[in-house]
Amino acid sequence: MSSKMLKIAVLGGTGNIGEGMVLRLALQNLMAEGVKNEIIIGSRSKEAADEAAKQDLSELENCGFDTSRVNITGNTNLEAAKAAEIIILSLRFDHVIPLLHEIREAIENKIIITPVVPMVKEGDLFIYKPPEEGSAALAIQKNVPASTKVVAAFHNIPARKLKDIAKCKAVHHALVCGDDAEAKKLVIKLTEHMGCLRPLDGGPLKQANTMESLTPLLINLAKLNGLKDLGINFS
Amino acid sequence: MSSKMLKIAVLGGTGNIGEGMVLRLALQNLMAEGVKNEIIIGSRSKEAADEAAKQDLSELENCGFDTSRVNITGNTNLEAAKAAEIIILSLRFDHVIPLLHEIREAIENKIIITPVVPMVKEGDLFIYKPPEEGSAALAIQKNVPASTKVVAAFHNIPARKLKDIAKCKAVHHALVCGDDAEAKKLVIKLTEHMGCLRPLDGGPLKQANTMESLTPLLINLAKLNGLKDLGINFS
Repeated sequence: MSSKMLKIAVLGGTGNIGEGMVLRLALQNLMAEGVKNEIIIGSRSKEAADEAAKQDLSELENCGFDTSRVNITGNTNLEAAKAAEIIILSLRFDHVIPLLHEIREAIENKIIITPVVPMVKEGDLFIYKPPEEGSAALAIQKNVPASTKVVAAFHNIPARKLKDIAKCKAVHHALVCGDDAEAKKLVIKLTEHMGCLRPLDGGPLKQANTMESLTPLLINLAKLNGLKDLGINFS
Repeated sequence: MSSKMLKIAVLGGTGNIGEGMVLRLALQNLMAEGVKNEIIIGSRSKEAADEAAKQDLSELENCGFDTSRVNITGNTNLEAAKAAEIIILSLRFDHVIPLLHEIREAIENKIIITPVVPMVKEGDLFIYKPPEEGSAALAIQKNVPASTKVVAAFHNIPARKLKDIAKCKAVHHALVCGDDAEAKKLVIKLTEHMGCLRPLDGGPLKQANTMESLTPLLINLAKLNGLKDLGINFS
């Protein structure tokens, strides 16, 4: 692969949303306008990450895509972060802050993308429960080096639609917010070519709390109204 | 008008959103399935409320509707609340709590609908700023008699689309939440016949904070992305 490829680590890439993200990013290599990339799946164990990478490549092949132009590998979270220019935190909120300290030296001057949503279940419904900083995004910003650019994105995408690269025809809005204009622009460009998403500028990182709180709302609305895999559109 | 008509007070019915709400409610009298109603616009001055009622009737006539089956009158907020079974608070949050104390005796055993959104402007963007209770809805519930049923609804409807009864073809989702099942059911029925809205059950009143926070989000997304009059749809 050429060194001009954008190197993207998907930490927690073995999970449900992580898998969808990896597939949708990998497919951009097959699109004329897509952002050409190499993906490194990160996990606590290199073996689990390797296995996920293999499965994702199989899934692409099974759907009939030419994987000769796709590069997906696995590694530990730290090695994945070291190798990448963009790091996506596809993890539960309670795992994120400890991980950021583990990988701190690997994320200087890089872009961190947070789709992280702090929420808890109360009875049948989910409640948004942000940390004292006001949002997961702001807590993450507080726990990374000053040179790291934090962008909040990909919170409100139903995992099943994201993973369904062969059949899903739904297109939902995806809100992107951040304080660094260049980093936000790059994430908006990545989002444009995810196949099922249309990006909207959500403003500065401070606005991430509303975006994060949409995730429990979508889950609750589905539950309360007998719907499923809800996404959001603004018009 | 028959005494079987549902009597609805729209306090702050002289404002932008209030006007749209009055028009959309009045039109239900002309729909086979609509909730038949009499509307009393409430305002600080009876004169302003009377004037708004006249203007709303003219608007309906100008759009070609038969107003002989429509009843819109004006009164002070207190008299409007006394006359009604359902009271819609179409007011700024900082005016709501003092008003609730003024009309306290008039709202025993009645349904209060809150579309109220506490927000402040910071720079170019709006920030959701809930009171310490967690949302305007919960603050309202704390300030009404125990017998009053509070339902949160109609937060996320662009005023211009709501008022445009002749031409607006957009249909957006409207979230309704509340703790009293019967009251919520009635508000969902009202919403179904608003012409531009499709109700979704948003759960208990505790969930109103997310709904309220969508309003500044919609305004900000429009501003940041060169769009206007945004509504929301879930699918």
